[in-house]
Amino acid sequence: MTDDVTHCASDGSHPSDCDILEGYRSRAREKKRPPAEEERVLLAKAGPIRLLLLDVDGVLTDGRLYYSEEGVESKTFNTKDGLGIRLVQRAEVMTGIITARQSRLVARRAEELEMDVIRQGARNKLEEFKSILGETGFKPYQVCYMGDDLIDLSLLTRVGLAACPADAVEGVKEVCHFISSHPGGGGAVRETCDLIVQAKGLYEKLVQQFL
Amino acid sequence: MTDDVTHCASDGSHPSDCDILEGYRSRAREKKRPPAEEERVLLAKAGPIRLLLLDVDGVLTDGRLYYSEEGVESKTFNTKDGLGIRLVQRAEVMTGIITARQSRLVARRAEELEMDVIRQGARNKLEEFKSILGETGFKPYQVCYMGDDLIDLSLLTRVGLAACPADAVEGVKEVCHFISSHPGGGGAVRETCDLIVQAKGLYEKLVQQFL
Amino acid sequence: MTDDVTHCASDGSHPSDCDILEGYRSRAREKKRPPAEEERVLLAKAGPIRLLLLDVDGVLTDGRLYYSEEGVESKTFNTKDGLGIRLVQRAEVMTGIITARQSRLVARRAEELEMDVIRQGARNKLEEFKSILGETGFKPYQVCYMGDDLIDLSLLTRVGLAACPADAVEGVKEVCHFISSHPGGGGAVRETCDLIVQAKGLYEKLVQQFL
Amino acid sequence: MTDDVTHCASDGSHPSDCDILEGYRSRAREKKRPPAEEERVLLAKAGPIRLLLLDVDGVLTDGRLYYSEEGVESKTFNTKDGLGIRLVQRAEVMTGIITARQSRLVARRAEELEMDVIRQGARNKLEEFKSILGETGFKPYQVCYMGDDLIDLSLLTRVGLAACPADAVEGVKEVCHFISSHPGGGGAVRETCDLIVQAKGLYEKLVQQFL
Repeated sequence: MTDDVTHCASDGSHPSDCDILEGYRSRAREKKRPPAEEERVLLAKAGPIRLLLLDVDGVLTDGRLYYSEEGVESKTFNTKDGLGIRLVQRAEVMTGIITARQSRLVARRAEELEMDVIRQGARNKLEEFKSILGETGFKPYQVCYMGDDLIDLSLLTRVGLAACPADAVEGVKEVCHFISSHPGGGGAVRETCDLIVQAKGLYEKLVQQFL
Repeated sequence: MTDDVTHCASDGSHPSDCDILEGYRSRAREKKRPPAEEERVLLAKAGPIRLLLLDVDGVLTDGRLYYSEEGVESKTFNTKDGLGIRLVQRAEVMTGIITARQSRLVARRAEELEMDVIRQGARNKLEEFKSILGETGFKPYQVCYMGDDLIDLSLLTRVGLAACPADAVEGVKEVCHFISSHPGGGGAVRETCDLIVQAKGLYEKLVQQFL
Repeated sequence: MTDDVTHCASDGSHPSDCDILEGYRSRAREKKRPPAEEERVLLAKAGPIRLLLLDVDGVLTDGRLYYSEEGVESKTFNTKDGLGIRLVQRAEVMTGIITARQSRLVARRAEELEMDVIRQGARNKLEEFKSILGETGFKPYQVCYMGDDLIDLSLLTRVGLAACPADAVEGVKEVCHFISSHPGGGGAVRETCDLIVQAKGLYEKLVQQFL
Repeated sequence: MTDDVTHCASDGSHPSDCDILEGYRSRAREKKRPPAEEERVLLAKAGPIRLLLLDVDGVLTDGRLYYSEEGVESKTFNTKDGLGIRLVQRAEVMTGIITARQSRLVARRAEELEMDVIRQGARNKLEEFKSILGETGFKPYQVCYMGDDLIDLSLLTRVGLAACPADAVEGVKEVCHFISSHPGGGGAVRETCDLIVQAKGLYEKLVQQFL
């Protein structure tokens, strides 16, 4: 039975699974064509990234703050972003969060995803950023930061790759190198992770591991 | 009074209910015209399906992971998907879930819908798939799998009908036979269930039971 | 100070509030022009409605079923729908729900809105409908029912005004007299309430009460 | 290391951060061109605002009322709106809420944002408004109110700047000076805050504080 599955033998009653696998690989190969000028610049910035820092509300979440009558606060994270963080980690990129708010649920999510840097209650994100650079030894051009609001401007204007979700405020979009086509909490982080992995030329290799 | 309702007698003050019922049936009849080539191929793949396997996050849900400050996790399922699963079950199709994550709430939803196969914490979905084929005796061409992310590629490239929600990642859309017009948690599963039931020529019969 | 507010006296430093009020009333008057043929038919059906019956999941909610790891289920209702139900009640229309599922939270919402009919766990909606007609003495043409899925077809094909949300399944849209421009849980019920109140010629009068 | 960050020194391996900062400031300067006639009128109304009053459901939230089976009610607020309220506060504008419903979670959010006026359970919003004017000494033209439904008409037709979210009901949109491009709970409040700050000529100064 398992032969059907792993050896791509056609049983005659339906198209060979190998055809599908080959089609997928061939479409992946076609993507190797030189990217447009704009994409080339973006990939040049994304290639050297060694540390991905993320804002939480509006980036890893959709910005919604759930308040219950009993005093319990909740947030929603996205499963696709979670896999994206796993992908950049496989590409030897450190990951972390910097957020002005403070909550145990954020720590729990960050630990679940085995993130390296967790800075909550960061009133002054720039100070935290300098401290992180000092501890890790990375230079700004090796850091990608994704934020969605004015409080993120100090970091976005200093990192090598400034990214924001599709629904970031205007003032943030203006300074970002990469504006995701997805909103915060809806795949913006994942798209940024994919970009970094692609810039490092590792995307196809990682995809193959899932086939 | 009940005669008004069940015997389609017009009381003179408003159009006969029977007119409406007949209009509905006639519109349903019109749909019997031969489908386009692409739809024909799709229906040919969907017809033999005997087992519908579903990913959870991003397929049966919208991919949101709700984390509360008190440590409680939640997900949202969709009532329309629930009725879809009931429909395929009436069409003698077994149903099940395969998910990498683990939670009691998923087990509860699956049991509520009387699903046959529940595999959680599936780090290697392909191994689970082979085990399910072994237990049920189905061949890959009799299985429909719906997934939304790279981790689902190993199954999507091996089943008879590979389906994904409208908001699946690009790499997944490329290998799927059927891309739902609805997103995960927003009717993608239901549309796939409807497709299978239609391919088996049972949709109209099932709809009549609700009239 | 209160004179500024209630007597429409201009204080010279900004446009008179009375101008705004008059503009609003004049725009409302303009809407008295004869509606298009299609709208006329719809209003003719909506005018005699004395009882508004609603499905819950996918109509009063967006169809999402929230499951928590601790076994607690939740749903979301919409504040605009709540005011809509208050509006039809002021227009002497009875309101109620018929749902196949069973939950205390639905009863709580229905009681909060002082609805007259609460039928949960309704496996056979048609039986419940007949029982409601028997108890209230209304005829089918005096009832509006809003539903979103196949299980609602038996009622939708028998009431005087069949309504559904924008995101109802195709089979339901085909039999409905009124398809809301809003999805379930997103204002579909409110739009139906507004339609009924307008058909009774009471909308403007009710709006005036809020000015 | 911190010199890289704060003194805009280029390390030669990537474009100078100062270039980015200067680009941002120059784009901000370009926006000083005279606004269109309509925008000028709007800014003239927004300039004198000293008090921003907000409805809760459908304005500070998306109108969803979360009901759990255990009897707990929840709402969702938006992190971008939160920063908007901080911005108007820095521009010396008082802030407050007036809502017909009553809940501890709303009080908690309002206190967290250090709002000045909290009026819940306001059956008659006009009475509350008069009372607030009496206590604060502001005149109606100095007040901006944002609401989304008929119950808000009495205030919207009396304040100097009447604002509503993109998804307000039609009757409300008709009387508002400013209709946000964002829905309730999705940035409508933030856009109104930005408008007021811009009208006071303080937006750029506030943005600079974040750089």
